Amino acid sequence: MALELDGIWAPLVTPFAEDEALDLEALAFNVQLYGQTPLRGYVALGTTGEFVHLSDEERGQVIETVVRAARADGRPVIAGVGGHATRVAIEQARRAADAGAAALLVWPPFYYKARMQAEALIDYFAAVADASPVPVILYHIPQNTGVNLSPAVVGELAAHPNIAGIKDSSGQPAQTIAFLREGGPRFRVFVGSTTALLAGLAAGAAGGILAAANLAPYECCEVYDHARAGRWAEAAEIYRRVAAVDEMVAGMGLGALKAVLDMLGYRGGHPRRPLVRPDEPQLDPLRLLLREQRLLGC
Amino acid sequence: MALELDGIWAPLVTPFAEDEALDLEALAFNVQLYGQTPLRGYVALGTTGEFVHLSDEERGQVIETVVRAARADGRPVIAGVGGHATRVAIEQARRAADAGAAALLVWPPFYYKARMQAEALIDYFAAVADASPVPVILYHIPQNTGVNLSPAVVGELAAHPNIAGIKDSSGQPAQTIAFLREGGPRFRVFVGSTTALLAGLAAGAAGGILAAANLAPYECCEVYDHARAGRWAEAAEIYRRVAAVDEMVAGMGLGALKAVLDMLGYRGGHPRRPLVRPDEPQLDPLRLLLREQRLLGC
Amino acid sequence: MALELDGIWAPLVTPFAEDEALDLEALAFNVQLYGQTPLRGYVALGTTGEFVHLSDEERGQVIETVVRAARADGRPVIAGVGGHATRVAIEQARRAADAGAAALLVWPPFYYKARMQAEALIDYFAAVADASPVPVILYHIPQNTGVNLSPAVVGELAAHPNIAGIKDSSGQPAQTIAFLREGGPRFRVFVGSTTALLAGLAAGAAGGILAAANLAPYECCEVYDHARAGRWAEAAEIYRRVAAVDEMVAGMGLGALKAVLDMLGYRGGHPRRPLVRPDEPQLDPLRLLLREQRLLGC
Amino acid sequence: MALELDGIWAPLVTPFAEDEALDLEALAFNVQLYGQTPLRGYVALGTTGEFVHLSDEERGQVIETVVRAARADGRPVIAGVGGHATRVAIEQARRAADAGAAALLVWPPFYYKARMQAEALIDYFAAVADASPVPVILYHIPQNTGVNLSPAVVGELAAHPNIAGIKDSSGQPAQTIAFLREGGPRFRVFVGSTTALLAGLAAGAAGGILAAANLAPYECCEVYDHARAGRWAEAAEIYRRVAAVDEMVAGMGLGALKAVLDMLGYRGGHPRRPLVRPDEPQLDPLRLLLREQRLLGC
Repeated sequence: MALELDGIWAPLVTPFAEDEALDLEALAFNVQLYGQTPLRGYVALGTTGEFVHLSDEERGQVIETVVRAARADGRPVIAGVGGHATRVAIEQARRAADAGAAALLVWPPFYYKARMQAEALIDYFAAVADASPVPVILYHIPQNTGVNLSPAVVGELAAHPNIAGIKDSSGQPAQTIAFLREGGPRFRVFVGSTTALLAGLAAGAAGGILAAANLAPYECCEVYDHARAGRWAEAAEIYRRVAAVDEMVAGMGLGALKAVLDMLGYRGGHPRRPLVRPDEPQLDPLRLLLREQRLLGC
Repeated sequence: MALELDGIWAPLVTPFAEDEALDLEALAFNVQLYGQTPLRGYVALGTTGEFVHLSDEERGQVIETVVRAARADGRPVIAGVGGHATRVAIEQARRAADAGAAALLVWPPFYYKARMQAEALIDYFAAVADASPVPVILYHIPQNTGVNLSPAVVGELAAHPNIAGIKDSSGQPAQTIAFLREGGPRFRVFVGSTTALLAGLAAGAAGGILAAANLAPYECCEVYDHARAGRWAEAAEIYRRVAAVDEMVAGMGLGALKAVLDMLGYRGGHPRRPLVRPDEPQLDPLRLLLREQRLLGC
Repeated sequence: MALELDGIWAPLVTPFAEDEALDLEALAFNVQLYGQTPLRGYVALGTTGEFVHLSDEERGQVIETVVRAARADGRPVIAGVGGHATRVAIEQARRAADAGAAALLVWPPFYYKARMQAEALIDYFAAVADASPVPVILYHIPQNTGVNLSPAVVGELAAHPNIAGIKDSSGQPAQTIAFLREGGPRFRVFVGSTTALLAGLAAGAAGGILAAANLAPYECCEVYDHARAGRWAEAAEIYRRVAAVDEMVAGMGLGALKAVLDMLGYRGGHPRRPLVRPDEPQLDPLRLLLREQRLLGC
Repeated sequence: MALELDGIWAPLVTPFAEDEALDLEALAFNVQLYGQTPLRGYVALGTTGEFVHLSDEERGQVIETVVRAARADGRPVIAGVGGHATRVAIEQARRAADAGAAALLVWPPFYYKARMQAEALIDYFAAVADASPVPVILYHIPQNTGVNLSPAVVGELAAHPNIAGIKDSSGQPAQTIAFLREGGPRFRVFVGSTTALLAGLAAGAAGGILAAANLAPYECCEVYDHARAGRWAEAAEIYRRVAAVDEMVAGMGLGALKAVLDMLGYRGGHPRRPLVRPDEPQLDPLRLLLREQRLLGC
């Protein structure tokens, strides 16, 4: 099947048991449930998937588990890869492709920040794209990496035949618009922040890779479908509900997202320390909001 | 006339002659032209109006000029005020109200940044609101001030009877959503960034105070009207055109906005140094984009 | 008397009464007391002097009061000036020189941060230096302004005949060293942060303009004199005591510095709101530390 | 031998061949040369050692190589460890101790920055210290991690029996002073920034872990020895020379440090991409400065 880089993708959480062991069964269970939704595909090992908390071996297991579970309904899997050294990112890219990833979401190096200027970033992403057997998507998430991909850098990288697009998780529509302009018509821009989804789609983004798609997959897809069909009023109504929840969950962290997934019948499980699940009293306002926004039944 | 805090407002540029003298005639001329547009009202002395470049006397002249010119068509004027000391902000608030401002847009102090924690910010804004004869709108523009108004601070201030709303110029829909949630139903949230307009309106913002409303007043109002009437497809199409231009203008600065106004038949004039107008070759890509987006005729 | 740009200068606090009225008498009282110390001179209207909290008229009064009081013992006065518009800074520079300032400490514009790149900063500072009747000292305090003066910009400005030096308040010896290298032998670098004083003097700084010189003028001068005379062991011992106090005071803000001055027999008075004086229980650890470091008697 | 946590330590570069292969022979060669210097010990796998560019297997090889080479002259080795997940940091801590590290330099997690508040940081460092067979040193390097260890957090961690100190690479003496105050007498504060060395030693720091100790080991130790013996004038003179070079090298990056080591007869080798060695024309000003400061012969 051809890889269509549009629509709504869920950057899957990676469930851990209370002792922090990787829970591949829970992961497969979630993908099976998502198989009933109109999600276009899955991202394994994104920020939501705690990529940085996993060993290389575990990363391989996660990709394979998701690929296998997704095969049932023919959905593609994008895998997160990256490294502080270019060679590490290249090795991860090859492994992820071997494990069945249809495309890669590639982080910039983010430790030697002062050195991550245009030349180094272009060298890094181009080298990974050269080596990768599958298409590459740039990952722009400056609030976590402290590294900014400028429109000029993205514009230059967009000319690479194996760089297919960017996930813009900055939450700033102005950035999405700049990437669209610099990237040109072939270059796919994914909104990576639920609160910026509607603005991004209106500006021409190809789709969304959204943490909120874990907890509201139907609603996120409805926003996308309505918007694509020109039914923006319907899109906006649903956007409002999902964005309100996303804004609160994002403020509480990944542990809160996992707790919500458990409320909803998925298996969110635990994050790995030092991340933690909020305790029950802390979750009360969130539970209330989910009900208000009709994302959780009574 | 009752003050309706919704719709699209233009934060007017303050035109200066080439020798940097305040050009009140050009300012009045622009307001007259805007009188034919469906703009809800004007903001004098915002960031776009070079508030920080003017003397107190000039500020009074600017407000009076805009109020007088706006009276012709019965539109209200919001005036930007603020100070690093609370007492300065209070004095400016009184003067601006005396000069005819219907509401105030109030900056936080932003020099002693490390001290601008919740308590100091609440003390400052509440004191200004206590003293102001007209309603107060908080001004959130962290990229310029380096001061962040947290949702909790905004929530507390929203309870003040004379604090009517906030202008969120962060460009991040997640912030707009948080302010809407914390502010409650009476509290008006204005989008202060054109690129975030559509997301903000969809999330429930009351309107927009947009630099782009200077150069595309009809289009900004159309986005708003279509969105309010549920015609989001039409809203989105126009949003795309305006946001693309805004993104480029914002990247070039106020001097570029003023040059564009001159292209369009308004009188943008010069900024005050050290800000400068881009030279003609630098303006070429912008002129091209304006034509592409049908905001400038051939 | 020739202006010697070295040694230790006190950036004087500006005392306000409890009702925030400017207390010029208290200011003159302090300068008289400092007349018995070996301070080289005074800076009126620096960050410590709440420059941003004063009207133009008050600024004139402050400079004149300090100049008059300092004349008794023949000490020079540097005045802080600056503006977001170049023309404002130029006007302030002229007024300050008229009021008797022997040199000026000049802030960069800091509202349109994204525009404050090399060209704009060089244009601004050069224009102020061109117009100023007295020598100009650049003011580098990025933690308050959000504007960074790069070594390259400082190097270029150092060639201007009326730019005499820089006050580096970054607190980072690496910056001081870079400014010394780029500025060349004629260019005077003042340490603007007490905790960085010893490193700065060792690296070749000409002197210090230090908030702590308000509360420990003798000790600050001793550090300088010992260091100049090669008695670094003595310098280091006293540095340790002063820096420990400075670090705590700086963490509590200007209100704490003013409270300490009152403890010591000076007249610190109140800051202007929204800054506040800490209350007595908050001051206890500070009082204890002052005694431990032998800066306050029993 | 007892572990004395003071004096000057070199955070060794990890040499790579031109094809980026790990060059353990060059590493051992460097340690042998350093065996003739008065360095107190070595840090393997710090920022200078490209910790983030190495696989777990390579990290073990680096520690073992340095430990073996250092055994010749009885010097201890501190190893850098850390992880985004606590369990990863714990596993690395155990391996590093097994490989012969006498103490550990522990990074904070730095991807989920918004979550790295006091509670998470204390939980993480305490867990690593609980599990580590050897003493732990906190690693504060906010310019690379984007994570700030507040004095309060450090103060709380300093009470842990297996947390021996902190490396403060912020370059800000004010931070060093705060850590000294909060840490108490048992807690060892290492200056991690050459330009802040003299201020740090004067304030009471136990020693320095300095990139510049790779290229000027004798001079760094002389600064320390003179300062400890109260010969601060001599300390300051040498500090000035080393700090000037360090400031330029730091501005050019690790590739420049490695090139300088090659000039000096060590084997610096190459960094791993995307880091690069400056080319020869770029190195000319650095070579000149090294000669001026008498750190490189003619």
